[in-house]
Amino acid sequence: MAADVAPVALAPAGRARVADPGEGVGLDELALATRNHGMPLEALRYDVTPPGLHYVLTHFDIPAADPASWELRIGGAVDRPLTLRLDDLMRRPAVTTRVLLECAGNGRARLEPRPVSQPWLLEAVGTAEWTGTPLAPLLEEAGLSPAAVDVVFTGADHGVERGVEQDYARGLPLAEAVRPEALLVWAMNGQPLPPQHGAPLRLLIPGWYGMAHVKWLTRIDVLTEPFTGYQNATAYRLKVDADESGEPVTRIRPRALLAPPGWPDFMTRERFVRAGAVPLSGRAWSGRAPVTRVEVSTDGGRSWDDAVLAPADADHPFAWRAWTYAWTATPGPHEVLVRATDEQGTQPVEQEWNRQGMANNLVQRVPVTVLD
Amino acid sequence: MAADVAPVALAPAGRARVADPGEGVGLDELALATRNHGMPLEALRYDVTPPGLHYVLTHFDIPAADPASWELRIGGAVDRPLTLRLDDLMRRPAVTTRVLLECAGNGRARLEPRPVSQPWLLEAVGTAEWTGTPLAPLLEEAGLSPAAVDVVFTGADHGVERGVEQDYARGLPLAEAVRPEALLVWAMNGQPLPPQHGAPLRLLIPGWYGMAHVKWLTRIDVLTEPFTGYQNATAYRLKVDADESGEPVTRIRPRALLAPPGWPDFMTRERFVRAGAVPLSGRAWSGRAPVTRVEVSTDGGRSWDDAVLAPADADHPFAWRAWTYAWTATPGPHEVLVRATDEQGTQPVEQEWNRQGMANNLVQRVPVTVLD
Repeated sequence: MAADVAPVALAPAGRARVADPGEGVGLDELALATRNHGMPLEALRYDVTPPGLHYVLTHFDIPAADPASWELRIGGAVDRPLTLRLDDLMRRPAVTTRVLLECAGNGRARLEPRPVSQPWLLEAVGTAEWTGTPLAPLLEEAGLSPAAVDVVFTGADHGVERGVEQDYARGLPLAEAVRPEALLVWAMNGQPLPPQHGAPLRLLIPGWYGMAHVKWLTRIDVLTEPFTGYQNATAYRLKVDADESGEPVTRIRPRALLAPPGWPDFMTRERFVRAGAVPLSGRAWSGRAPVTRVEVSTDGGRSWDDAVLAPADADHPFAWRAWTYAWTATPGPHEVLVRATDEQGTQPVEQEWNRQGMANNLVQRVPVTVLD
Repeated sequence: MAADVAPVALAPAGRARVADPGEGVGLDELALATRNHGMPLEALRYDVTPPGLHYVLTHFDIPAADPASWELRIGGAVDRPLTLRLDDLMRRPAVTTRVLLECAGNGRARLEPRPVSQPWLLEAVGTAEWTGTPLAPLLEEAGLSPAAVDVVFTGADHGVERGVEQDYARGLPLAEAVRPEALLVWAMNGQPLPPQHGAPLRLLIPGWYGMAHVKWLTRIDVLTEPFTGYQNATAYRLKVDADESGEPVTRIRPRALLAPPGWPDFMTRERFVRAGAVPLSGRAWSGRAPVTRVEVSTDGGRSWDDAVLAPADADHPFAWRAWTYAWTATPGPHEVLVRATDEQGTQPVEQEWNRQGMANNLVQRVPVTVLD
């Protein structure tokens, strides 16, 4: 449907809705919640998330792709436009890297008031081993214009969002697109990409929220001016008022999550443990700077204690890191909190609200009933 | 936690809640919706659902299982209790079979009033190739008591449901457990079972709703009286009043679903197509009797027309079947319905309400806007 470099019109984009006070989740949000899926937090136990447990967000439908006939076109402000088939790409130097992805909307449904969109609680994360070929040498071969500013990645997924019909497309600043970590990826955990993760080809841009890792990638277009498509200019913005243009959503902010201890109640997901030694564990990450500290509170945030953070893995700077904490649990109700700090700051304990529910890294609160 | 053959107490089970009129989905239901996941309906295109797209429902947490040390115990009313490791089972005769699974709660969130539990719309389905060994010869080797009535399957998943702490356990009538199609399964689509599908071992009892296919299987106990555990006596019952005991949920009722045509709106999932020839397609199934007919309505149910139903596959009687329908779409709003008929009856067009939202096979309604 998209014939041009910038396939997306800005107007007449509707505004995102914010739920009324006390308003329950609607059938529209539920339809998103049941088709997209989060990572059940007990899967924090895996260094590498199995594909079916890794979070998935698809804006439109999962395209039906034939790897044998798939083509990627590289064009726009380049000297030599390229058309590449999957085989062409797989003959190039391959890199496998362990990278955490998190949806920019993670935590949205915990905000008050609640921005109406995909209603994530805290489970829109996962870490996988991705295999692909670096993007920068391909852009070099195509002959980047010295005037290049943005690189636009377009997927085969097509639909309407707030009145705008579009192929999903995201622009990246050139400096990000030519980072050595930016890959065109065809495998996940040693297997061909599953359909829902972008088969047969997606972008991987470590450190960025998930919206930037364009799936079902069909086109890469170099622009000499900033991309103004819907997903950059409208959707993924940090703004409080509907009328402001807001700041773009970019790198992943620090977060730590707790693997749920003990056993759950089916309906409330409340946790139960027995009194005594309760080892707590989980993962922490940041896409913008190295994680330096993880702290745990078992008294609802009144006091904090340092967790033991696993050493950074120099080979996988964009993976999550394990943390552990030895809790001696006393009978009664408790609320466990965990927060990460990176070189730029600490997760907030009070919400920093924005009207599209983006890049919200409010600390997790886990009610735990300790039994005698 | 479960030391006896019947590990589950009936009292003091709380009652299932029914939502008030107009009440939105709560954070408790949302927590279930974001951790469990449905099959995005465009995946109806696949004969065999990739594992990460197959629906998943876990009552409690996904257990951490070590296949190397996993043991299955077969006991109760048998002459020779058995303890089997995964290797022992994998040396036995193996069968691979294509079987549809559907959650008994599929469609629950479309009921009015809405039973409060996992809020499925219509996506709690999937068809996979399962590999395992038949159960009946194992029961024979163990020496079934002539007085055997039920066979109870217990998983490693543990939690609390309506006040009852339990290992997940389901009883099956003996006649079902010794059907040649009943398998102990260790592989899905040619790969080891993923964690969320029961690794390393689950039951497969083709034709039954998902709750019967016990995952993370650790024990099989033969009873000489009917099993009265929570998941049989309380949870999976068809009842209208809270005080009646109700009928047990057993085999899958007939259903047909439409693969969504055209393209979606992100938020509403409304469909758009261009006027003219619009091929419609989807799948139909029943676990209780062969499907005999699929019908499509493109006018909201006022008129129905036969779809073309793919021939039954004698090798895979419990898989879904493809159907197709050639629609000539005229501009304007339409509502597409599809319904399946099996040898026992047709899907209802009006809801047949029950208070736990079980085995509800109300027809699907898909609003489609046809553009000029």
